[in-house]
Amino acid sequence: MTRQIRLALRAYGVGGPGQHSLWKDPRVPKNASIDIDWYIAQAQAAEHAKFDALFIVDSQFIDATYPPHYLNRLEPLTLLSAVATHTRHIGLVGTLSSTYNSPFNVARRFASLDHISHGRAGWNVVTSLDSGTSRNYGLDEHLDYTTRYGRALEHVQVVRGLWDSYEDDAFPADVDRDVFVEPSKLHALNHEGSYFKVAGPLNLSRSPQGQPVIFQAGVSEEGRNLAAHVAEGIYAPGGTLESVRAYYADIKRRALSLGRDPNHVVIFLGAQPVVAATDEEAHRLSRDIYEADNDFTRKLAQFGRSFGAHDFSRYDLDAPFPDVAHLAEKSGRTRGTAIIERAKSENLSLRETVLAFSQYQPSPFTGAPETVAQAIADWFEAEAFDGLNVGFRTNEDLSRFVADVVPLLQKQGLFRTEYEHDTLRGHLGLPIPANRWAAS
Amino acid sequence: MTRQIRLALRAYGVGGPGQHSLWKDPRVPKNASIDIDWYIAQAQAAEHAKFDALFIVDSQFIDATYPPHYLNRLEPLTLLSAVATHTRHIGLVGTLSSTYNSPFNVARRFASLDHISHGRAGWNVVTSLDSGTSRNYGLDEHLDYTTRYGRALEHVQVVRGLWDSYEDDAFPADVDRDVFVEPSKLHALNHEGSYFKVAGPLNLSRSPQGQPVIFQAGVSEEGRNLAAHVAEGIYAPGGTLESVRAYYADIKRRALSLGRDPNHVVIFLGAQPVVAATDEEAHRLSRDIYEADNDFTRKLAQFGRSFGAHDFSRYDLDAPFPDVAHLAEKSGRTRGTAIIERAKSENLSLRETVLAFSQYQPSPFTGAPETVAQAIADWFEAEAFDGLNVGFRTNEDLSRFVADVVPLLQKQGLFRTEYEHDTLRGHLGLPIPANRWAAS
Repeated sequence: MTRQIRLALRAYGVGGPGQHSLWKDPRVPKNASIDIDWYIAQAQAAEHAKFDALFIVDSQFIDATYPPHYLNRLEPLTLLSAVATHTRHIGLVGTLSSTYNSPFNVARRFASLDHISHGRAGWNVVTSLDSGTSRNYGLDEHLDYTTRYGRALEHVQVVRGLWDSYEDDAFPADVDRDVFVEPSKLHALNHEGSYFKVAGPLNLSRSPQGQPVIFQAGVSEEGRNLAAHVAEGIYAPGGTLESVRAYYADIKRRALSLGRDPNHVVIFLGAQPVVAATDEEAHRLSRDIYEADNDFTRKLAQFGRSFGAHDFSRYDLDAPFPDVAHLAEKSGRTRGTAIIERAKSENLSLRETVLAFSQYQPSPFTGAPETVAQAIADWFEAEAFDGLNVGFRTNEDLSRFVADVVPLLQKQGLFRTEYEHDTLRGHLGLPIPANRWAAS
Repeated sequence: MTRQIRLALRAYGVGGPGQHSLWKDPRVPKNASIDIDWYIAQAQAAEHAKFDALFIVDSQFIDATYPPHYLNRLEPLTLLSAVATHTRHIGLVGTLSSTYNSPFNVARRFASLDHISHGRAGWNVVTSLDSGTSRNYGLDEHLDYTTRYGRALEHVQVVRGLWDSYEDDAFPADVDRDVFVEPSKLHALNHEGSYFKVAGPLNLSRSPQGQPVIFQAGVSEEGRNLAAHVAEGIYAPGGTLESVRAYYADIKRRALSLGRDPNHVVIFLGAQPVVAATDEEAHRLSRDIYEADNDFTRKLAQFGRSFGAHDFSRYDLDAPFPDVAHLAEKSGRTRGTAIIERAKSENLSLRETVLAFSQYQPSPFTGAPETVAQAIADWFEAEAFDGLNVGFRTNEDLSRFVADVVPLLQKQGLFRTEYEHDTLRGHLGLPIPANRWAAS
């Protein structure tokens, strides 16, 4: 079969990161980020268009300067569980921090979602970058970067172990033999590692996918390493065609070197397509979107989020870029390190640095429907991604993408016209993991 | 208005505690405890009958000897969120352990459920009794009893503080004034107590009920004290009319002495009504239910759960009752202490003790519909409860109770015939708590 594009819908509620002003658009419902009916409608629209998954991002620290979609948001699993019973095919991927949730709770909640959705749950594992979040969980200092990733790897391994507590056929419920559960098919994990000690077993039968799908968004060295070890889906940040291809090749190579099938690591590129009647109109629209939030104070606050929500307003804007290497290192963000390197090498002030990193950069998927479809096809053929994780400003933009761009991809045989599976693993071509206890 | 009875439905999935054999009943779906459609149908049936709430119990440790409904169960919040969008009036009360969930996560999840259900969420606060559960969360020893309750009280206080992060009118979303959020109406909690240090704010607007309703099931001295401090709904264990009235009076008195309105602590008595065409038939049925699980090995395992899931099979059954005072004390269960006292004073062996505490005790609500309705009315008038938290073995039993008993209560004016409110607080006559930050 030809390699086909996967599509996930990133549903934010009110606008996306940096979109402070979008709520003023009369087409945007002010309450969308806490309106379950809005999310259900988004999921149904994406399912109608045969998307692979609905993707729910998360964050856990705010102050009043944050963009609207951060300020007021439903907890991802609670949200997805409600969406599950109003959809039948689309995958449901939720973000949950491995740093602030016990493996036992994570295992239960995602296995429950997998049962409720009949095999459509995915866990986007994040380690929660900012010190603001750590203070919401009783820690003054955030866990350091290496600890956080080592812990994340072990966390995922424990969760997967708990998901295997029951073998697939552990519940014969055989009245004649008087056997509800087969005791030999229930297994305690008895994990004792560097970070976790978890006995188990999980009090939930093996879920329809065997195990929910693991997503990750590794960018730094340790993040990529974690992704190559455990991720089955990856949420990759955007960039130039060159940088994105390099990332793609790197992740696939790492997975291969760990003995994994690179096709079982499905890379979704984050994208915000801007589609209009003509290329010109789309680029004008794209520029308007940028200008609507072209406010330096907000940019400065947004900029600080690459350094663990650091407050940069305390520095002289026109003095040389401040020494924040420890913040970049602690939060482990490649972006922070890249910023510091460029500021140093080009001798930039704080103001110049912020401006340099918040310049207008249109999405590569901006233009008339044909242009966007062709760019998507080209990037896909160039192995920049296996799928796109698309976000839109308004429902109208989503509808336009679905009505005008998706059919062009379908015409080229690059996107499904019907679902062939009922599970997220099915859509993504991922195998059901064998239970570790099952006799082979 | 006349004082009216509240009704909650305890939905277990496959059978209740001690009901090992119920799964063999052809009327019981073997998969009910993980079948979201089964729960949705139960909730809709209860809503059709104008019940106040659906009540989801929980536990987090199993071995293969546990009764079916423990072995395989959905996580309560994931479950209730799915039920929320298929119901419109009924309250949704979920059990979550304050010992093994961070206040920030608990606050987010219940506030999310309150938004999703438009004001119907309730949190049943439990402290998780058994050492088995503690080993699922990396602890060898369970927190001692006093610590667990002190910690629970502070936990609830922190959660409530987080629920007040935003004032009710924090999001004007006023396009003309260009104000999405009113920064002065977002408040960090900055809690630093004996057990928790939580900065906040919560990233979720104040929910429809102001705060979800707090339920608790305090039996021991510390448990009653916690309940009197923070509970708005109480799940009380069954007993004789005398013991139940004493419990009721004690809780109301404690609440009053703490300056609370006793009407704002709504006491639900756990009950498993057995209804049949005649009193005689109902009692025969009740006896049959008991006999179906009258198995000493199972009784011994069940017995151990009053002592933190202690394994009593290691003792000589016919020797004097073993010294397990430390277990009763650690788990803080009044039942454990009561068992030890009786075993000592009557000089019972282990076998005799187990038998003494697992004797046949029919529900006081056993009989023909008229008999059951009258018993409920009598106990209610005698101030044994404000409401019943009823559980049934089969859907048929629930239907019979709804069709034959509820109308008799309605005829006496003791139960609503229509919903007068859309929120759980509304049903229970509980006020919406004022936000602590709001100018008075």
